[in-house]
Amino acid sequence: MYSEKALIHGGDIYTHRDLKPGQKLLDFSANLNPLGMPESVKQAAISAISASEAYPDPLCRELREAISKEEGIPAGQIVCGNGAADLLYRLVWAVKPEKGLVLAPTFAEYELALQNAGAETEIFPLSPEKGFAPDEAVLDAVKPGVSIVFFCNPNNPTGITAGREYLCRLAEKCREAGALLVIDECFLSFVEKGAEKSMVPALSRFENLLILKAFTKLYAMAGLRLGFLLCGSEKLAGEIAASGQAWSVSTPAQAAGIAALSEREYAAKTREYVRENRAFLHKTLEEAGAQVFPSEANYLFFRWRDGHLPEELLKHGILIRSCKNYHSLDETYYRIAVRTAEENRAFAAALRQIAGQKG
Amino acid sequence: MYSEKALIHGGDIYTHRDLKPGQKLLDFSANLNPLGMPESVKQAAISAISASEAYPDPLCRELREAISKEEGIPAGQIVCGNGAADLLYRLVWAVKPEKGLVLAPTFAEYELALQNAGAETEIFPLSPEKGFAPDEAVLDAVKPGVSIVFFCNPNNPTGITAGREYLCRLAEKCREAGALLVIDECFLSFVEKGAEKSMVPALSRFENLLILKAFTKLYAMAGLRLGFLLCGSEKLAGEIAASGQAWSVSTPAQAAGIAALSEREYAAKTREYVRENRAFLHKTLEEAGAQVFPSEANYLFFRWRDGHLPEELLKHGILIRSCKNYHSLDETYYRIAVRTAEENRAFAAALRQIAGQKG
Repeated sequence: MYSEKALIHGGDIYTHRDLKPGQKLLDFSANLNPLGMPESVKQAAISAISASEAYPDPLCRELREAISKEEGIPAGQIVCGNGAADLLYRLVWAVKPEKGLVLAPTFAEYELALQNAGAETEIFPLSPEKGFAPDEAVLDAVKPGVSIVFFCNPNNPTGITAGREYLCRLAEKCREAGALLVIDECFLSFVEKGAEKSMVPALSRFENLLILKAFTKLYAMAGLRLGFLLCGSEKLAGEIAASGQAWSVSTPAQAAGIAALSEREYAAKTREYVRENRAFLHKTLEEAGAQVFPSEANYLFFRWRDGHLPEELLKHGILIRSCKNYHSLDETYYRIAVRTAEENRAFAAALRQIAGQKG
Repeated sequence: MYSEKALIHGGDIYTHRDLKPGQKLLDFSANLNPLGMPESVKQAAISAISASEAYPDPLCRELREAISKEEGIPAGQIVCGNGAADLLYRLVWAVKPEKGLVLAPTFAEYELALQNAGAETEIFPLSPEKGFAPDEAVLDAVKPGVSIVFFCNPNNPTGITAGREYLCRLAEKCREAGALLVIDECFLSFVEKGAEKSMVPALSRFENLLILKAFTKLYAMAGLRLGFLLCGSEKLAGEIAASGQAWSVSTPAQAAGIAALSEREYAAKTREYVRENRAFLHKTLEEAGAQVFPSEANYLFFRWRDGHLPEELLKHGILIRSCKNYHSLDETYYRIAVRTAEENRAFAAALRQIAGQKG
């Protein structure tokens, strides 16, 4: 059978195209910026279509220079990819790890990439009693024999963050064990004071550190595909760049990325918008009887009385992410994205109706 | 050092941006349709930018249906990729072959993909005495122990084609040896009566057969990245689709591909144009003293008196492909694309000057 694996994530709007006539699908299942793609980014991508007759620059030179300036990391330590997920696969195929350590619950592609590269995966279950927050036990799980550790900050689906001091200790433990540490900061730009939690300033101290970042989410350009990896080691960056095809990043994606980096106010404006709207959704969910976890990201993780919420919400044209296919979770766990104020109100109205609350 | 691997191919226009003021770079190093990207394809890609805020359909459902109709192959046996090169890597990652057989000279990414997946590569050198044409000896090289064979038809860089009868015998030999056979037909649409040489009609007879095709070349959309694989086995198609990230094909690429398949006359028009212009370049090269091989594709393979032609042509703003980094070849072998009549005349004028011919 043709792969169903590809549909385990959120954002599967293509399966649910056929709603009632006139009904618009509201996608709360994919964690994208509710403010959408900046106009300048759209225009850059459109302008790049004519130049797309030629092959893209395989080295992404202009884009990497722009990222280098933005992040303060030499261009030789930056690898661009066809979305952040592309880089996970190219990384594991460059490194060919024996064994990877992955926390649970977390983004599914770490484990899938490890399996694809023939690596053993050790799953470290985060404790539901501690609200799935990472603690000292994670550090203790990093032992010789583990070749690579994946850590998502903020974690997906929980939205829980870890601080830099904790992550530096994790990087140190990984170094001692001879393991690489991959910190996935794809959603960190949505977090208030996220910069204080970023491991980018620590990159020069850890050759074994890799930081994964995406344009996809912050600039709502998931369909254009663009992510990048910042590597503590220039040598490893070169190996990952050479792992996989020469032209992984399309011409429109390269142009869109360069334009996005000129949008100086977009991240701050987004954080402000997300903070307000997340608070609204949090309150809405709690009032409807959900157990809501303390997310700092642009999505909320919660528990509901039963596993029927997706089909009930779909009757209202609303798509959410069931978390039943995550390790450690069951069908009563859910994740929703923070969307626009209008969409969030529509969600709230639908949820209240399902919960039997009064208008 | 950051990867130089990515620059071994043609089409490296980004390194050579700085010409004399006002001079336009003529790229004869990348084998793209000289007629460019059809206007309908451009418009489809542009229209898809707004929809690129969301994730692309991971299963490329509409596109695969359109390809299925065009090729007469069930959608379940079709895998789309971020360019044909993406599929080479996802294929070897899915299959994890022990040993691959690759002819020489040929497209470099087969061997690079095999290396990336940790496979051993056996190189079969085509004979220069036979003009690098494939013969019975290739069939004899397929022995138990070989897990996958790559065959490029027409071959790149030579432009030499093989017939279906020969390829069916090769597929049979591969089946007996327990090997997969990958036929790369990325340039076959440029060949006159190419359909008669295509292995697509034989796909139902060989579970071990895979056919690689690209939109990139025929529709000059190399910067958008789109290729596909037709698989003799639906099971293997599913495994390749699940090998690598979920969203490898961007939203603009999916839209462009669907639009391209509505361009019913483009391939025939292109073949006619390429045939005439290839003849002109062939004659030009021979008159200038080159040894020209009998290419049926949209590019010409030739031998020149020395290895200095690229820098001499670059003074005229012309980029060509040196073949010195191919197995079995040296710096006196070159490949040029068939370009527009105007560009070809500019090439001819420059070459005559270099050769010391009169006007």
